[in-house]
Amino acid sequence: MILYDHPASGNCMKARILLRQLEIPFERVTVDLFTGETRTLAHFGRNPDGRIPVLGLDDGQLIPESGAILAHLGEGTEYLPADPLARTRVFQWMFFEQNRIEAELAYARFLKLSGRFDQIPEVFENRLERGRDALAALDRGLSDGRDFLAGDYSIADIALYAYVHCAEDAGAELGPHEAIAGWLSRVEATPRFENDLEPLPEHALQRPV
Amino acid sequence: MILYDHPASGNCMKARILLRQLEIPFERVTVDLFTGETRTLAHFGRNPDGRIPVLGLDDGQLIPESGAILAHLGEGTEYLPADPLARTRVFQWMFFEQNRIEAELAYARFLKLSGRFDQIPEVFENRLERGRDALAALDRGLSDGRDFLAGDYSIADIALYAYVHCAEDAGAELGPHEAIAGWLSRVEATPRFENDLEPLPEHALQRPV
Repeated sequence: MILYDHPASGNCMKARILLRQLEIPFERVTVDLFTGETRTLAHFGRNPDGRIPVLGLDDGQLIPESGAILAHLGEGTEYLPADPLARTRVFQWMFFEQNRIEAELAYARFLKLSGRFDQIPEVFENRLERGRDALAALDRGLSDGRDFLAGDYSIADIALYAYVHCAEDAGAELGPHEAIAGWLSRVEATPRFENDLEPLPEHALQRPV
Repeated sequence: MILYDHPASGNCMKARILLRQLEIPFERVTVDLFTGETRTLAHFGRNPDGRIPVLGLDDGQLIPESGAILAHLGEGTEYLPADPLARTRVFQWMFFEQNRIEAELAYARFLKLSGRFDQIPEVFENRLERGRDALAALDRGLSDGRDFLAGDYSIADIALYAYVHCAEDAGAELGPHEAIAGWLSRVEATPRFENDLEPLPEHALQRPV
């Protein structure tokens, strides 16, 4: 398999974590979102939305969207339960992640780390505030004593880990959320789990005018 | 089944469309997001994220997240294909929707229709611009002549329809996107399809200061 990815993308790291946990060999092809490589004709051919990750299957099929990649690879494995209700809980948290964590908190983190938050401060504050609200929701969801989001460890935990573990980069506080802290540790202790998220590259950084 | 919903919520309409297409009887319980009813202890007990829709199953289980509701109800029916790749395409577009349409375009639409866009204009413009970009991505995805997003009509089409059909409310243009226009008509022509999205209620509107 080929993973079109970037070492500083949390969405891409989700796919890398599961591929390694499933012990599936894969080739990495870097598509540099910070220089516009995701918005070329070549990459639009892989994903009409011009984003990464995209997973290239051995038969040539291309799968965009981190959540769809996790679901495709997870199907039939211990990482995506067969039980209908447990499976629905997995998807519940994965949709929550794309809507409330990725769109708000991950975008706020990018604005902060890249230095762009000073240029659109109202946008940054709005995304950060909504990201904080999403973290509170996640903490409530974990506060009933469960170990993982949907029963056993699953692709939902991988999806949520990617941008929750680094929430403080954006300026959100994880300290008050005790249930999240314990859950992050349990995720990191699963077999073959690897957090290899790299910092934003130098060329992604905006200098103050 | 019980659907905790609101007649002016596109996310809730997704569940209503599928329930009707599956001919499943359901009771509607309005939870007024515009007066804070979704952020009460009672509703946090249904959904730690304090949002609607939430589907109450006959055995008392509660399912939040429109995408998870669609997947749960769709499983085993013609609306969620069993073929692994077709199923993955369904989830690809549903994750795209939550991240790129709902979080950007639907929020911009709410700001516009409620009159709040004047209070946070930078936020409104940012969400609208990113929503326009998502519409262009959807149009590219539909431009290969396909009738529906993932082969046959599926829960992906329901999920995308909800906030794409009313994109112009936000100030986004559907005119240039011919593939989207044809697809919207095909979705509306499916058996038992009903668009019953209501306008924002009077009490949701902000008056200029």
